[in-house]
Amino acid sequence: MKSKYLIVAALFLINLQVEAQKKNNPHGMYKHVVLFKFKETSSKASVDSIISAFILLKDQIPVIKGFEWGLNDSPEHVDQGITHCFAVTFASTSDRDNVYQDHPAHVQFKKLVGPHVEKVVVVDYKVE
Amino acid sequence: MKSKYLIVAALFLINLQVEAQKKNNPHGMYKHVVLFKFKETSSKASVDSIISAFILLKDQIPVIKGFEWGLNDSPEHVDQGITHCFAVTFASTSDRDNVYQDHPAHVQFKKLVGPHVEKVVVVDYKVE
Repeated sequence: MKSKYLIVAALFLINLQVEAQKKNNPHGMYKHVVLFKFKETSSKASVDSIISAFILLKDQIPVIKGFEWGLNDSPEHVDQGITHCFAVTFASTSDRDNVYQDHPAHVQFKKLVGPHVEKVVVVDYKVE
Repeated sequence: MKSKYLIVAALFLINLQVEAQKKNNPHGMYKHVVLFKFKETSSKASVDSIISAFILLKDQIPVIKGFEWGLNDSPEHVDQGITHCFAVTFASTSDRDNVYQDHPAHVQFKKLVGPHVEKVVVVDYKVE
């Protein structure tokens, strides 16, 4: 009887392992990299609210499979003054172009961002 | 006796799970995003050899903890003509700035790339 429980537990762990690997493996996923240079006149509170709103999108738009962000600290002087970096992961270009782009939460987010950015760079790639 | 094996197997799987999560969790890691616009005059063979050399760096420079790349296909017209995207992961800014930057394999790689790029954008961020 004890063995049966252990076998069930082992199978559960194997499944968790497989799911974790699938979830974290970026190969074949679509990365959407968004780089902002915020205006120097924009307050820290405004910028913070934009970051929070971007983070919140992943809870509002189910096709977002991964999300990360950070402050640019490149020492190489070829960053064009970019201050903030975001990377959003999708499972397909269709999720990105047809669901995410026109999703009401994303449209609302773009309205929030617009007045505060001096520069935007966006690149997309399928992870090879 | 059988139970003992199962317990060992279960502990092994738990450990694998924890290691996989640690390895794949980008929080606190340092992303180094490199965007190239290759010259239109550069041949496909030259560009392919550069991509291969970049991929090879992760085997030559042990501080590279993660690596991914892809072809830009952004439909948003704010990509500045970028054609290729690369993201390298480090565990610290020291690994990035003191080990990677001046590593002979990276220096050699930069010499290979130089003549073929029309534009380079590099940003770095600690994943929040």
